[in-house]
Amino acid sequence: MLILLTNDDGIRAPGLVALYREIRDLGEVHVVAPETVQSASGHGITLDTPLLTQRVTIEETFTGTAVEGRPADCVKLAMAQILPRTPDLVISGLNSGANVGINVIYSGTVAAAIEAAFLGAPAIAASLHLRSDIRTDYAAGAKHARMAIDRVLAAGIKPGEIVSINVPAIAQRAKPAGMKVVRQCTRPWVDTYEERTDPRGRKYYWNSSVFTLGETEDDTDVAALRDGYITITPLQFDLTHHLMLRAWQDREWK
Amino acid sequence: MLILLTNDDGIRAPGLVALYREIRDLGEVHVVAPETVQSASGHGITLDTPLLTQRVTIEETFTGTAVEGRPADCVKLAMAQILPRTPDLVISGLNSGANVGINVIYSGTVAAAIEAAFLGAPAIAASLHLRSDIRTDYAAGAKHARMAIDRVLAAGIKPGEIVSINVPAIAQRAKPAGMKVVRQCTRPWVDTYEERTDPRGRKYYWNSSVFTLGETEDDTDVAALRDGYITITPLQFDLTHHLMLRAWQDREWK
Repeated sequence: MLILLTNDDGIRAPGLVALYREIRDLGEVHVVAPETVQSASGHGITLDTPLLTQRVTIEETFTGTAVEGRPADCVKLAMAQILPRTPDLVISGLNSGANVGINVIYSGTVAAAIEAAFLGAPAIAASLHLRSDIRTDYAAGAKHARMAIDRVLAAGIKPGEIVSINVPAIAQRAKPAGMKVVRQCTRPWVDTYEERTDPRGRKYYWNSSVFTLGETEDDTDVAALRDGYITITPLQFDLTHHLMLRAWQDREWK
Repeated sequence: MLILLTNDDGIRAPGLVALYREIRDLGEVHVVAPETVQSASGHGITLDTPLLTQRVTIEETFTGTAVEGRPADCVKLAMAQILPRTPDLVISGLNSGANVGINVIYSGTVAAAIEAAFLGAPAIAASLHLRSDIRTDYAAGAKHARMAIDRVLAAGIKPGEIVSINVPAIAQRAKPAGMKVVRQCTRPWVDTYEERTDPRGRKYYWNSSVFTLGETEDDTDVAALRDGYITITPLQFDLTHHLMLRAWQDREWK
Protein backbone atom coordinates (compact mmCIF):
# COMPACT_ATOMS: atom_id res chain seq x y z
CA MET A 1 0.00 0.00 0.00
CA LEU A 2 1.35 3.42 -1.04
CA ILE A 3 0.62 5.98 1.68
CA LEU A 4 1.11 9.73 1.75
CA LEU A 5 1.50 11.17 5.25
CA THR A 6 1.13 14.93 5.71
CA ASN A 7 -0.05 17.42 8.34
CA ASP A 8 -0.44 21.11 9.08
CA ASP A 9 1.85 21.41 12.11
CA GLY A 10 4.99 20.95 10.02
CA ILE A 11 7.18 17.98 9.15
CA ARG A 12 8.99 18.11 12.52
CA ALA A 13 5.80 18.02 14.60
CA PRO A 14 5.73 15.34 17.31
CA GLY A 15 2.24 14.25 16.23
CA LEU A 16 3.41 13.45 12.71
CA VAL A 17 6.49 11.56 13.89
CA ALA A 18 4.42 9.55 16.37
CA LEU A 19 1.83 8.71 13.72
CA TYR A 20 4.57 7.72 11.24
CA ARG A 21 5.88 5.21 13.77
CA GLU A 22 2.39 3.76 14.21
CA ILE A 23 1.52 3.40 10.52
CA ARG A 24 4.80 2.51 8.85
CA ASP A 25 3.97 -1.20 8.83
CA LEU A 26 0.85 -0.49 6.75
CA GLY A 27 2.89 -0.02 3.59
CA GLU A 28 5.32 2.33 1.82
CA VAL A 29 4.87 5.66 3.63
CA HIS A 30 5.99 8.89 1.91
CA VAL A 31 6.06 12.02 4.05
CA VAL A 32 5.44 15.36 2.32
CA ALA A 33 4.57 18.05 4.84
CA PRO A 34 4.92 21.79 5.44
CA GLU A 35 8.33 23.16 6.45
CA THR A 36 6.66 25.44 9.01
CA VAL A 37 3.61 25.37 11.24
CA GLN A 38 0.42 26.01 9.23
CA SER A 39 -2.28 25.67 11.88
CA ALA A 40 -5.66 27.23 11.15
CA SER A 41 -4.46 27.81 7.60
CA GLY A 42 -7.72 26.52 6.17
CA HIS A 43 -7.80 25.36 2.60
CA GLY A 44 -5.35 27.91 1.23
CA ILE A 45 -3.12 27.10 -1.74
CA THR A 46 -0.05 28.73 -3.27
CA LEU A 47 -0.31 29.84 -6.90
CA ASP A 48 1.80 32.98 -7.28
CA THR A 49 5.01 32.00 -5.51
CA PRO A 50 7.15 28.88 -5.94
CA LEU A 51 7.05 25.99 -3.49
CA LEU A 52 10.56 25.54 -2.08
CA THR A 53 11.30 22.01 -0.97
CA GLN A 54 14.00 20.10 0.77
CA ARG A 55 14.59 16.53 1.75
CA VAL A 56 14.91 16.22 5.51
CA THR A 57 15.50 13.38 7.91
CA ILE A 58 13.51 13.58 11.13
CA GLU A 59 14.52 11.92 14.41
CA GLU A 60 16.31 9.16 12.46
CA THR A 61 12.80 7.87 11.78
CA PHE A 62 12.04 8.91 8.21
CA THR A 63 13.28 11.03 5.33
CA GLY A 64 10.59 13.18 3.77
CA THR A 65 10.01 16.29 1.70
CA ALA A 66 9.52 19.56 3.55
CA VAL A 67 7.53 22.10 1.49
CA GLU A 68 7.42 25.82 2.16
CA GLY A 69 3.71 25.95 1.54
CA ARG A 70 0.32 25.11 2.92
CA PRO A 71 -1.04 21.64 3.74
CA ALA A 72 -3.11 21.49 0.54
CA ASP A 73 0.00 22.47 -1.46
CA CYS A 74 1.84 19.50 0.00
CA VAL A 75 -0.90 17.12 -1.12
CA LYS A 76 -1.13 18.67 -4.59
CA LEU A 77 2.64 18.61 -5.10
CA ALA A 78 3.02 15.09 -3.71
CA MET A 79 0.25 13.68 -5.87
CA ALA A 80 1.19 15.56 -9.05
CA GLN A 81 4.96 15.35 -8.82
CA ILE A 82 6.62 13.47 -6.00
CA LEU A 83 4.75 10.17 -5.59
CA PRO A 84 5.11 7.51 -8.31
CA ARG A 85 1.31 7.14 -8.57
CA THR A 86 -1.94 8.08 -6.83
CA PRO A 87 -1.54 6.85 -3.26
CA ASP A 88 -3.78 4.12 -1.90
CA LEU A 89 -4.30 6.20 1.22
CA VAL A 90 -3.53 9.73 2.39
CA ILE A 91 -3.28 10.40 6.12
CA SER A 92 -3.08 13.91 7.58
CA GLY A 93 -1.98 14.23 11.19
CA LEU A 94 -1.66 13.56 13.99
CA ASN A 95 -2.76 17.13 14.59
CA SER A 96 -2.03 18.97 17.84
CA GLY A 97 -5.58 19.86 18.78
CA ALA A 98 -9.02 18.53 18.00
CA ASN A 99 -10.73 19.26 14.71
CA VAL A 100 -14.35 19.00 15.68
CA GLY A 101 -17.30 21.31 15.32
CA ILE A 102 -16.82 24.42 13.31
CA ASN A 103 -13.02 24.10 13.68
CA VAL A 104 -13.26 21.63 10.80
CA ILE A 105 -13.60 24.52 8.37
CA TYR A 106 -10.46 26.29 9.65
CA SER A 107 -8.36 23.17 9.82
CA GLY A 108 -5.32 22.71 7.62
CA THR A 109 -5.25 19.05 8.67
CA VAL A 110 -8.73 18.51 7.29
CA ALA A 111 -8.00 20.66 4.21
CA ALA A 112 -5.12 18.33 3.31
CA ALA A 113 -7.43 15.32 3.55
CA ILE A 114 -10.14 17.04 1.51
CA GLU A 115 -7.59 17.95 -1.17
CA ALA A 116 -6.40 14.34 -1.34
CA ALA A 117 -9.94 13.02 -1.67
CA PHE A 118 -10.76 15.56 -4.31
CA LEU A 119 -7.70 14.40 -6.27
CA GLY A 120 -8.89 10.80 -6.07
CA ALA A 121 -7.39 9.14 -2.99
CA PRO A 122 -9.09 7.79 0.13
CA ALA A 123 -8.20 10.28 2.85
CA ILE A 124 -8.08 10.28 6.62
CA ALA A 125 -7.51 13.29 8.90
CA ALA A 126 -6.39 12.43 12.44
CA SER A 127 -6.31 14.90 15.32
CA LEU A 128 -5.53 14.70 19.02
CA HIS A 129 -7.55 16.73 21.50
CA LEU A 130 -5.32 18.65 23.91
CA ARG A 131 -6.29 19.48 27.47
CA SER A 132 -4.31 21.67 29.80
CA ASP A 133 -5.04 19.31 32.71
CA ILE A 134 -3.75 16.21 30.91
CA ARG A 135 -0.15 15.73 29.79
CA THR A 136 -0.09 15.42 25.99
CA ASP A 137 1.11 11.97 24.96
CA TYR A 138 1.55 11.81 21.19
CA ALA A 139 2.69 8.18 21.23
CA ALA A 140 -0.50 7.08 22.99
CA GLY A 141 -2.59 9.37 20.80
CA ALA A 142 -1.04 7.90 17.65
CA LYS A 143 -1.74 4.36 18.92
CA HIS A 144 -5.41 5.25 19.34
CA ALA A 145 -5.45 6.94 15.95
CA ARG A 146 -4.01 3.76 14.41
CA MET A 147 -6.78 1.69 16.00
CA ALA A 148 -9.33 3.99 14.40
CA ILE A 149 -7.51 3.96 11.04
CA ASP A 150 -7.66 0.16 11.05
CA ARG A 151 -11.41 0.30 11.66
CA VAL A 152 -11.87 2.85 8.87
CA LEU A 153 -9.87 0.68 6.47
CA ALA A 154 -11.92 -2.34 7.50
CA ALA A 155 -15.13 -0.37 6.87
CA GLY A 156 -13.81 0.19 3.34
CA ILE A 157 -12.98 3.85 2.72
CA LYS A 158 -13.00 4.49 -1.05
CA PRO A 159 -11.12 6.93 -3.33
CA GLY A 160 -12.67 10.37 -2.97
CA GLU A 161 -13.95 9.65 0.53
CA ILE A 162 -12.77 11.54 3.62
CA VAL A 163 -12.92 10.44 7.23
CA SER A 164 -11.91 12.67 10.11
CA ILE A 165 -10.74 10.95 13.30
CA ASN A 166 -10.41 12.73 16.64
CA VAL A 167 -8.67 11.13 19.59
CA PRO A 168 -9.60 12.33 23.08
CA ALA A 169 -7.05 13.66 25.55
CA ILE A 170 -6.37 10.70 27.78
CA ALA A 171 -4.70 10.50 31.15
CA GLN A 172 -1.77 8.09 31.44
CA ARG A 173 -2.83 4.45 31.49
CA ALA A 174 -6.48 5.44 30.84
CA LYS A 175 -8.38 4.35 27.71
CA PRO A 176 -10.83 6.00 25.32
CA ALA A 177 -14.49 5.30 26.16
CA GLY A 178 -14.83 3.65 22.75
CA MET A 179 -15.38 4.71 19.15
CA LYS A 180 -18.36 6.63 17.73
CA VAL A 181 -19.43 7.61 14.21
CA VAL A 182 -20.81 11.12 14.62
CA ARG A 183 -21.67 14.22 12.62
CA GLN A 184 -19.88 17.57 12.70
CA CYS A 185 -21.41 20.02 15.19
CA THR A 186 -22.20 23.23 13.31
CA ARG A 187 -23.03 25.44 16.28
CA PRO A 188 -21.31 28.81 16.29
CA TRP A 189 -18.94 29.83 19.02
CA VAL A 190 -18.58 33.32 20.43
CA ASP A 191 -15.54 35.25 19.23
CA THR A 192 -13.90 37.69 21.58
CA TYR A 193 -11.08 40.11 20.86
CA GLU A 194 -8.96 42.25 23.14
CA GLU A 195 -8.37 45.74 21.80
CA ARG A 196 -4.95 47.34 22.39
CA THR A 197 -3.10 50.38 21.08
CA ASP A 198 0.42 50.24 19.62
CA PRO A 199 3.13 52.87 20.47
CA ARG A 200 2.10 54.80 17.34
CA GLY A 201 -1.55 54.97 18.31
CA ARG A 202 -2.89 52.29 15.97
CA LYS A 203 -5.46 49.82 17.22
CA TYR A 204 -4.74 46.13 17.16
CA TYR A 205 -6.68 43.10 18.33
CA TRP A 206 -5.82 39.76 19.90
CA ASN A 207 -8.27 36.93 19.44
CA SER A 208 -9.01 35.92 23.02
CA SER A 209 -11.70 33.31 22.34
CA VAL A 210 -11.62 30.24 24.53
CA PHE A 211 -12.30 27.10 22.56
CA THR A 212 -13.96 24.45 24.65
CA LEU A 213 -16.02 21.36 23.90
CA GLY A 214 -19.12 23.22 25.00
CA GLU A 215 -22.85 23.19 24.38
CA THR A 216 -23.87 20.79 21.65
CA GLU A 217 -26.40 18.14 20.66
CA ASP A 218 -25.79 14.55 21.80
CA ASP A 219 -25.05 13.09 18.36
CA THR A 220 -22.13 15.32 17.42
CA ASP A 221 -18.34 15.02 17.26
CA VAL A 222 -18.04 17.63 20.01
CA ALA A 223 -20.23 15.65 22.43
CA ALA A 224 -18.55 12.31 21.73
CA LEU A 225 -15.04 13.72 22.09
CA ARG A 226 -15.99 15.50 25.30
CA ASP A 227 -17.27 12.16 26.61
CA GLY A 228 -13.92 10.50 25.91
CA TYR A 229 -14.75 8.67 22.66
CA ILE A 230 -12.60 8.42 19.57
CA THR A 231 -14.77 10.13 16.96
CA ILE A 232 -15.16 9.13 13.32
CA THR A 233 -16.80 11.65 10.99
CA PRO A 234 -17.20 11.16 7.23
CA LEU A 235 -16.70 14.52 5.46
CA GLN A 236 -17.40 15.84 1.96
CA PHE A 237 -16.37 18.81 -0.18
CA ASP A 238 -19.64 19.58 -1.97
CA LEU A 239 -20.49 22.97 -0.50
CA THR A 240 -23.80 23.34 -2.35
CA HIS A 241 -26.79 23.72 -0.03
CA HIS A 242 -28.93 21.25 -2.02
CA LEU A 243 -32.19 21.84 -0.15
CA MET A 244 -31.96 25.59 -0.69
CA LEU A 245 -30.82 25.00 -4.27
CA ARG A 246 -34.00 23.05 -5.08
CA ALA A 247 -36.23 25.60 -3.36
CA TRP A 248 -34.59 28.48 -5.20
CA GLN A 249 -34.64 26.69 -8.55
CA ASP A 250 -38.43 26.55 -8.20
CA ARG A 251 -38.54 30.35 -8.25
CA GLU A 252 -38.37 32.28 -11.48
CA TRP A 253 -34.95 33.69 -12.40
CA LYS A 254 -34.30 35.27 -15.74
CA MET B 1 -29.95 48.06 6.63
CA LEU B 2 -26.53 47.54 8.24
CA ILE B 3 -24.13 45.98 5.73
CA LEU B 4 -20.59 44.67 6.12
CA LEU B 5 -18.55 44.70 2.92
CA THR B 6 -15.33 42.67 2.79
CA ASN B 7 -13.24 40.74 0.27
CA ASP B 8 -10.02 38.76 -0.15
CA ASP B 9 -8.21 40.95 -2.69
CA GLY B 10 -7.58 43.72 -0.15
CA ILE B 11 -9.36 46.92 0.79
CA ARG B 12 -7.89 48.82 -2.18
CA ALA B 13 -9.00 46.27 -4.78
CA PRO B 14 -10.92 47.74 -7.73
CA GLY B 15 -13.63 45.08 -7.40
CA LEU B 16 -14.41 46.10 -3.82
CA VAL B 17 -14.48 49.81 -4.64
CA ALA B 18 -16.77 49.20 -7.65
CA LEU B 19 -19.11 47.04 -5.58
CA TYR B 20 -19.18 49.63 -2.78
CA ARG B 21 -20.38 52.23 -5.28
CA GLU B 22 -23.13 49.89 -6.49
CA ILE B 23 -24.46 48.89 -3.06
CA ARG B 24 -24.08 52.03 -0.93
CA ASP B 25 -27.72 53.02 -1.46
CA LEU B 26 -28.83 49.72 0.12
CA GLY B 27 -28.04 50.95 3.62
CA GLU B 28 -25.21 51.82 6.01
CA VAL B 29 -22.18 50.06 4.52
CA HIS B 30 -19.14 49.35 6.73
CA VAL B 31 -15.99 48.18 4.98
CA VAL B 32 -13.62 45.89 6.92
CA ALA B 33 -11.21 44.13 4.57
CA PRO B 34 -7.66 42.77 4.43
CA GLU B 35 -4.77 45.23 4.18
CA THR B 36 -3.07 42.98 1.61
CA VAL B 37 -4.10 40.56 -1.13
CA GLN B 38 -5.34 37.26 0.35
CA SER B 39 -6.36 35.31 -2.75
CA ALA B 40 -6.65 31.53 -2.46
CA SER B 41 -6.21 31.93 1.29
CA GLY B 42 -9.07 29.55 1.99
CA HIS B 43 -10.71 29.64 5.37
CA GLY B 44 -7.62 30.45 7.40
CA ILE B 45 -7.84 32.46 10.61
CA THR B 46 -5.31 34.21 12.83
CA LEU B 47 -5.09 33.09 16.44
CA ASP B 48 -1.45 33.45 17.51
CA THR B 49 -0.57 36.92 16.25
CA PRO B 50 -2.44 40.19 16.71
CA LEU B 51 -4.57 41.72 13.98
CA LEU B 52 -3.16 45.16 13.17
CA THR B 53 -5.74 47.57 11.85
CA GLN B 54 -5.91 51.04 10.42
CA ARG B 55 -8.64 53.33 9.19
CA VAL B 56 -8.09 54.13 5.52
CA THR B 57 -9.94 56.24 2.98
CA ILE B 58 -10.06 54.74 -0.50
CA GLU B 59 -10.51 56.75 -3.71
CA GLU B 60 -12.48 59.42 -1.79
CA THR B 61 -15.29 56.85 -1.86
CA PHE B 62 -15.34 55.31 1.61
CA THR B 63 -13.44 55.11 4.87
CA GLY B 64 -13.00 51.59 6.15
CA THR B 65 -10.89 49.39 8.41
CA ALA B 66 -7.90 47.63 6.85
CA VAL B 67 -6.92 44.49 8.78
CA GLU B 68 -3.58 42.73 8.51
CA GLY B 69 -5.24 39.33 8.47
CA ARG B 70 -7.23 36.90 6.44
CA PRO B 71 -10.74 37.42 5.03
CA ALA B 72 -12.36 35.32 7.79
CA ASP B 73 -10.45 37.38 10.40
CA CYS B 74 -11.99 40.56 8.99
CA VAL B 75 -15.49 39.14 9.36
CA LYS B 76 -14.85 37.85 12.88
CA LEU B 77 -13.30 41.12 14.04
CA ALA B 78 -15.98 43.24 12.37
CA MET B 79 -18.83 41.24 13.85
CA ALA B 80 -17.30 40.85 17.33
CA GLN B 81 -15.77 44.27 17.74
CA ILE B 82 -16.20 46.92 15.06
CA LEU B 83 -19.86 46.86 14.00
CA PRO B 84 -22.50 48.13 16.43
CA ARG B 85 -24.58 44.94 16.01
CA THR B 86 -24.89 41.83 13.82
CA PRO B 87 -25.18 43.15 10.27
CA ASP B 88 -28.35 42.59 8.25
CA LEU B 89 -26.21 41.50 5.33
CA VAL B 90 -22.56 40.65 4.69
CA ILE B 91 -21.22 40.95 1.15
CA SER B 92 -17.80 39.64 0.13
CA GLY B 93 -16.40 40.84 -3.19
CA LEU B 94 -16.37 41.74 -5.95
CA ASN B 95 -13.61 39.17 -6.36
CA SER B 96 -11.11 39.29 -9.23
CA GLY B 97 -11.76 35.87 -10.67
CA ALA B 98 -14.59 33.37 -10.65
CA ASN B 99 -15.29 31.20 -7.62
CA VAL B 100 -16.95 28.23 -9.24
CA GLY B 101 -16.31 24.50 -9.15
CA ILE B 102 -13.69 23.27 -6.78
CA ASN B 103 -12.23 26.80 -6.52
CA VAL B 104 -15.00 27.43 -4.00
CA ILE B 105 -13.03 25.51 -1.37
CA TYR B 106 -9.85 27.58 -1.88
CA SER B 107 -11.62 30.92 -2.02
CA GLY B 108 -11.05 33.58 0.60
CA THR B 109 -14.05 35.46 -0.79
CA VAL B 110 -16.31 32.50 -0.10
CA ALA B 111 -14.63 31.82 3.27
CA ALA B 112 -15.55 35.34 4.41
CA ALA B 113 -19.19 34.73 3.46
CA ILE B 114 -19.24 31.32 5.16
CA GLU B 115 -17.77 32.86 8.33
CA ALA B 116 -20.44 35.57 8.33
CA ALA B 117 -23.24 33.05 7.89
CA PHE B 118 -21.82 30.87 10.60
CA LEU B 119 -21.81 33.89 12.93
CA GLY B 120 -25.46 34.56 12.17
CA ALA B 121 -25.72 36.97 9.23
CA PRO B 122 -27.15 36.43 5.75
CA ALA B 123 -24.08 36.34 3.49
CA ILE B 124 -23.39 36.86 -0.20
CA ALA B 125 -20.09 36.19 -2.00
CA ALA B 126 -19.72 37.95 -5.35
CA SER B 127 -17.03 37.16 -7.91
CA LEU B 128 -16.22 38.33 -11.42
CA HIS B 129 -14.91 35.87 -13.99
CA LEU B 130 -11.80 37.20 -15.76
CA ARG B 131 -10.90 36.33 -19.34
CA SER B 132 -7.67 37.31 -21.05
CA ASP B 133 -9.57 38.10 -24.27
CA ILE B 134 -12.04 40.49 -22.61
CA ARG B 135 -11.06 43.75 -20.93
CA THR B 136 -11.97 43.53 -17.23
CA ASP B 137 -14.65 46.09 -16.38
CA TYR B 138 -15.24 46.13 -12.62
CA ALA B 139 -17.90 48.83 -12.83
CA ALA B 140 -20.01 46.75 -15.23
CA GLY B 141 -19.29 43.60 -13.21
CA ALA B 142 -20.43 45.32 -10.02
CA LYS B 143 -23.65 46.47 -11.74
CA HIS B 144 -24.42 42.88 -12.71
CA ALA B 145 -23.53 41.70 -9.20
CA ARG B 146 -25.95 44.28 -7.77
CA MET B 147 -28.75 42.99 -10.04
CA ALA B 148 -28.11 39.51 -8.68
CA ILE B 149 -27.91 40.77 -5.07
CA ASP B 150 -31.32 42.42 -5.51
CA ARG B 151 -32.76 39.12 -6.74
CA VAL B 152 -31.21 37.23 -3.82
CA LEU B 153 -32.64 39.74 -1.34
CA ALA B 154 -36.04 39.46 -3.04
CA ALA B 155 -35.85 35.66 -2.77
CA GLY B 156 -35.37 36.19 0.96
CA ILE B 157 -31.89 35.13 2.12
CA LYS B 158 -31.99 34.43 5.87
CA PRO B 159 -29.42 34.71 8.69
CA GLY B 160 -27.03 31.77 8.42
CA GLU B 161 -27.61 31.35 4.68
CA ILE B 162 -24.89 31.83 2.08
CA VAL B 163 -25.29 32.58 -1.61
CA SER B 164 -22.39 32.73 -4.03
CA ILE B 165 -22.83 34.90 -7.12
CA ASN B 166 -20.54 34.72 -10.13
CA VAL B 167 -20.66 37.32 -12.89
CA PRO B 168 -19.43 36.30 -16.36
CA ALA B 169 -16.67 38.19 -18.19
CA ILE B 170 -18.59 40.40 -20.56
CA ALA B 171 -17.43 42.35 -23.61
CA GLN B 172 -18.22 46.06 -23.61
CA ARG B 173 -21.90 46.82 -24.20
CA ALA B 174 -22.76 43.09 -24.12
CA LYS B 175 -25.10 41.59 -21.51
CA PRO B 176 -25.15 38.42 -19.42
CA ALA B 177 -27.25 35.63 -20.95
CA GLY B 178 -29.43 35.73 -17.83
CA MET B 179 -29.37 34.37 -14.31
CA LYS B 180 -29.26 30.71 -13.24
CA VAL B 181 -29.48 28.94 -9.88
CA VAL B 182 -26.93 26.13 -10.15
CA ARG B 183 -24.96 23.71 -8.02
CA GLN B 184 -21.20 23.72 -7.42
CA CYS B 185 -19.30 21.50 -9.87
CA THR B 186 -17.15 19.09 -7.84
CA ARG B 187 -15.07 17.63 -10.67
CA PRO B 188 -11.34 17.57 -10.03
CA TRP B 189 -8.93 19.48 -12.18
CA VAL B 190 -5.45 18.33 -13.15
CA ASP B 191 -2.60 19.95 -11.21
CA THR B 192 0.69 20.49 -12.98
CA TYR B 193 3.95 21.76 -11.52
CA GLU B 194 7.18 22.87 -13.17
CA GLU B 195 10.27 21.61 -11.37
CA ARG B 196 13.28 23.94 -11.20
CA THR B 197 16.56 24.00 -9.29
CA ASP B 198 17.77 27.00 -7.30
CA PRO B 199 21.41 28.24 -7.37
CA ARG B 200 22.12 26.12 -4.28
CA GLY B 201 20.79 22.94 -5.85
CA ARG B 202 17.44 22.78 -4.05
CA LYS B 203 14.36 21.78 -5.99
CA TYR B 204 11.42 24.12 -6.17
CA TYR B 205 8.10 23.97 -7.97
CA TRP B 206 5.82 26.44 -9.70
CA ASN B 207 2.17 25.56 -9.98
CA SER B 208 1.58 25.75 -13.73
CA SER B 209 -2.04 24.54 -13.80
CA VAL B 210 -4.31 26.32 -16.26
CA PHE B 211 -7.73 26.98 -14.77
CA THR B 212 -10.44 26.97 -17.42
CA LEU B 213 -14.20 26.54 -17.34
CA GLY B 214 -13.79 23.07 -18.76
CA GLU B 215 -15.58 19.74 -18.83
CA THR B 216 -18.60 19.68 -16.56
CA GLU B 217 -22.22 18.59 -16.31
CA ASP B 218 -24.91 20.92 -17.70
CA ASP B 219 -26.46 21.89 -14.36
CA THR B 220 -23.35 23.31 -12.67
CA ASP B 221 -21.95 26.75 -11.88
CA VAL B 222 -19.06 26.09 -14.26
CA ALA B 223 -21.36 25.36 -17.23
CA ALA B 224 -23.66 28.32 -16.59
CA LEU B 225 -20.79 30.78 -16.18
CA ARG B 226 -19.10 29.44 -19.32
CA ASP B 227 -22.37 30.03 -21.18
CA GLY B 228 -22.46 33.68 -20.06
CA TYR B 229 -24.99 33.45 -17.23
CA ILE B 230 -24.80 35.12 -13.84
CA THR B 231 -24.72 32.13 -11.48
CA ILE B 232 -26.41 31.88 -8.10
CA THR B 233 -25.31 29.02 -5.84
CA PRO B 234 -26.58 28.49 -2.28
CA LEU B 235 -23.73 27.19 -0.11
CA GLN B 236 -23.48 25.58 3.34
CA PHE B 237 -20.80 24.85 5.93
CA ASP B 238 -21.89 21.44 7.20
CA LEU B 239 -19.04 19.26 5.95
CA THR B 240 -20.51 16.00 7.24
CA HIS B 241 -21.10 13.44 4.48
CA HIS B 242 -24.56 12.51 5.81
CA LEU B 243 -25.18 9.58 3.47
CA MET B 244 -21.90 7.96 4.43
CA LEU B 245 -22.53 8.85 8.08
CA ARG B 246 -25.80 6.90 8.12
CA ALA B 247 -24.25 3.94 6.31
CA TRP B 248 -21.31 3.82 8.71
CA GLN B 249 -23.48 4.26 11.77
CA ASP B 250 -25.24 1.03 10.78
CA ARG B 251 -21.97 -0.85 11.21
CA GLU B 252 -20.74 -1.92 14.61
CA TRP B 253 -18.15 0.35 16.27
CA LYS B 254 -17.01 -0.07 19.81
